[in-house]
Amino acid sequence: MDTYQTILSLRSVRQFDLSRPIDEATLQRIVQAGRMSGSSKDSQPWWFIVVTDRATLAALSRTGDYAQHLAGAAFALAIVFDPKFYRGEFDSGRTAQNMMLAAWNEGIGSCIASIHHEDDGKAVLGVPGELRLQHIISFGYPLPGKQSISAAPKRARKPLDEIVMKERWSKR
Amino acid sequence: MDTYQTILSLRSVRQFDLSRPIDEATLQRIVQAGRMSGSSKDSQPWWFIVVTDRATLAALSRTGDYAQHLAGAAFALAIVFDPKFYRGEFDSGRTAQNMMLAAWNEGIGSCIASIHHEDDGKAVLGVPGELRLQHIISFGYPLPGKQSISAAPKRARKPLDEIVMKERWSKR
Repeated sequence: MDTYQTILSLRSVRQFDLSRPIDEATLQRIVQAGRMSGSSKDSQPWWFIVVTDRATLAALSRTGDYAQHLAGAAFALAIVFDPKFYRGEFDSGRTAQNMMLAAWNEGIGSCIASIHHEDDGKAVLGVPGELRLQHIISFGYPLPGKQSISAAPKRARKPLDEIVMKERWSKR
Repeated sequence: MDTYQTILSLRSVRQFDLSRPIDEATLQRIVQAGRMSGSSKDSQPWWFIVVTDRATLAALSRTGDYAQHLAGAAFALAIVFDPKFYRGEFDSGRTAQNMMLAAWNEGIGSCIASIHHEDDGKAVLGVPGELRLQHIISFGYPLPGKQSISAAPKRARKPLDEIVMKERWSKR
């Protein structure tokens, strides 16, 4: 799919069709998209934990306030980053976007869960204390009739002139 | 360009061909890619300042330790975000990636400058005190012979098995 169309059509999918498994080559392309993402001074401050075990997914779904979708994901990718890097959180956002776009390019939906109860999430996955686990992404084919690409509601966004300024700050 | 190819081929471009202006419609597509990015609870915690004034670009290039490329950009996009939102920095990374991929899809290079001297950067652009200005992105067509797509060196990345784990943390 053309990059611009993928970017504009990407939306969160929270209900997945578990009757359609995701093959290993597809999963590898998604992870590769994350790996090849740029980062400050090429620090690559991230690790990705691929979770397919249903009990683990269910446990993770209880570590964020709106993370229930993780329990029904075909797989999840936990993004762990090292806060000693200057841009670890920002660069984690870049790599997340790469992986979600690469998935959507193949018809696979995704949704980011914020891990509000981070210590609980880290305990589930055994993540060392000094590292951060703020985001876990659900992936899977959209459940038919629920959130197919064509059925998804048009996303509301602020008008361009509300968020874009020219040359210098001119709002508020 | 296919999304996956755009993702894998994206690399930082720091020297731009200022003899090739970027037309308004292209700039609008880049900004639109940023606007349509997803964010936590659709908070859209960002504003984008489009900078084309050469004196302003030169001033901004002195607000980060490695931000010299801003002085030679066709235009820059300053990402301002509101830290009161839970995922402002992470979501800023997502919107940055969307804009850089949309640009690269049309052959336009980009590079992120970290604004280490944030108060200086905010003063240049007049950004209000409570908001954050951590990143400004340079955009422009790559300077021929310098960093064309085909001439760019292959990016080094950590091996997949160093950053990817299955089911739970298993490193260190």
